[in-house]
Amino acid sequence: MIFLGIDGGGTRCRARLRDASGQVLGEGEGGPANIHQDFAGTVRSIREAAQQAMAAGKLPQEAAHSIRAGFGLAGIVTAGTGDQLCASGLPFAAITAINDAHAACLGAHGGTDGGIIITGTGSAGYLIKNETGKGIGGWGFELGDDGSGAMMGREALRRAVLAIDGLGPASQLTDAILADLGRDQPALARWARAARPADYARFVPNVLSAADAGDAIAVEIVTVAAAALETMAGRLLALGAPKLSLLGGIAAVMQARMPPNLQACMVPPLADAMDGAIMVARKTAGLALRPPALAVPPAPQG
Amino acid sequence: MIFLGIDGGGTRCRARLRDASGQVLGEGEGGPANIHQDFAGTVRSIREAAQQAMAAGKLPQEAAHSIRAGFGLAGIVTAGTGDQLCASGLPFAAITAINDAHAACLGAHGGTDGGIIITGTGSAGYLIKNETGKGIGGWGFELGDDGSGAMMGREALRRAVLAIDGLGPASQLTDAILADLGRDQPALARWARAARPADYARFVPNVLSAADAGDAIAVEIVTVAAAALETMAGRLLALGAPKLSLLGGIAAVMQARMPPNLQACMVPPLADAMDGAIMVARKTAGLALRPPALAVPPAPQG
Repeated sequence: MIFLGIDGGGTRCRARLRDASGQVLGEGEGGPANIHQDFAGTVRSIREAAQQAMAAGKLPQEAAHSIRAGFGLAGIVTAGTGDQLCASGLPFAAITAINDAHAACLGAHGGTDGGIIITGTGSAGYLIKNETGKGIGGWGFELGDDGSGAMMGREALRRAVLAIDGLGPASQLTDAILADLGRDQPALARWARAARPADYARFVPNVLSAADAGDAIAVEIVTVAAAALETMAGRLLALGAPKLSLLGGIAAVMQARMPPNLQACMVPPLADAMDGAIMVARKTAGLALRPPALAVPPAPQG
Repeated sequence: MIFLGIDGGGTRCRARLRDASGQVLGEGEGGPANIHQDFAGTVRSIREAAQQAMAAGKLPQEAAHSIRAGFGLAGIVTAGTGDQLCASGLPFAAITAINDAHAACLGAHGGTDGGIIITGTGSAGYLIKNETGKGIGGWGFELGDDGSGAMMGREALRRAVLAIDGLGPASQLTDAILADLGRDQPALARWARAARPADYARFVPNVLSAADAGDAIAVEIVTVAAAALETMAGRLLALGAPKLSLLGGIAAVMQARMPPNLQACMVPPLADAMDGAIMVARKTAGLALRPPALAVPPAPQG
């Protein structure tokens, strides 16, 4: 038996193949997997990523029929979407589709109870307890994403335009941003109208380096974001997560800003969302969740 | 001589005709005037509003040729756009185009030095001193609009979803919003992805009534918005405005929340943006800025 794990999100789709012992056979990458916006495109991206992984593992085309697949996909909330994927013509022997956060949490804690906080362009939390998953956040940029890179970047830009208007102080941070984007009012307003969360997140390095240099505005922005992640961590612990992992593009820098009592509850993720998806595929095949190659470290003493 | 004043914004375009003595001849309304997004549509909306005003005043079509027009239009920043409007085939004897905030400020203070703060769906400030205009704000919803209805509404929604996740307290306000929009995560996230600033501003009545009832979350939201307007008022006074007018859909409720020293600097607007646009048209015709019908009250003793 061969297992395929897919981690699919709005920008790309990644695939990993492992054999039953847990040995990696190959990896691949495909296009975006926006299941609600473009179902056919998502199926195409999965196929592309899986074919790359098979090619990397020197597996022949017909090996697809003995592959059992787990898909961790952004936007999966109902079993119905999974059924739709099973009927989409993909050549695998079995398909199980779960939410990408569930896959990431399974991977991070190897199926044991635990929570994750994802902080990158966006932010969200997820918890698995007694094999049941629960998400917090995931409201998107306008209603949620507290503690995310996009929010920090946008707040930095807001401070920069306040400085232009004389409604707030200028600083190293606001100067750096305006040196980058310019000070022209119509041009900046136009830029913001078209800006996506990732465009705001681009300014996170400016915010972090200014905060390290003691820039008061940057320190405030990072402190507010860290407090939001702290609140999320506290909530996941209260919901029964014995341990937490911080995942995502700015996880390391934000974890360093958490208070010691929360840091003591944090563990490095055991594995990633692709491996979490593989674990689901193993489970539906009746195998142990974790392949022998993936051992779970003991929970920290909080 | 007949004078036409146009107040054109993103949702509609309003027109007023006055004779040289200041007597109102008629009013009209047309479609949106998004000059940068749809120039031809803007010209159409202006024509429509002007024709309605002429019909209301029982003026024949050919009277258009003796009309001197002032346009106060959102998005006008360069004289070039005005030239383009003059060449657009509108039948008037003269056209002068200015920014809508400049027209509103001229109308509010009748051409004397003063500042305005517009607070409705969005927010912005403007100042005329020694016949020179200067705007502050106008960055749009993502970068600006502090102290606006859209920001208050969005913040109320953010608090509501924090309450769903157990990341913040529930209150009368968050309950009212969730009773309206529902608690379904994918549906709410979808709503927010499509929401425009006006959709958020729809919740301002909830915020204000909850604040009046002592709801702590609502009080905090209104206090933050009022503080932003206060900062803007302070800045306009520092820039040399001897008096201020608060304009826009939530001006009255927000003015009541300003500290007494700022309220003492506030005057009701003398006239609106259409009359401000008429004043510009009068000026280019060599007449006194204000028609005899519009007298300026004395500045308050701050």
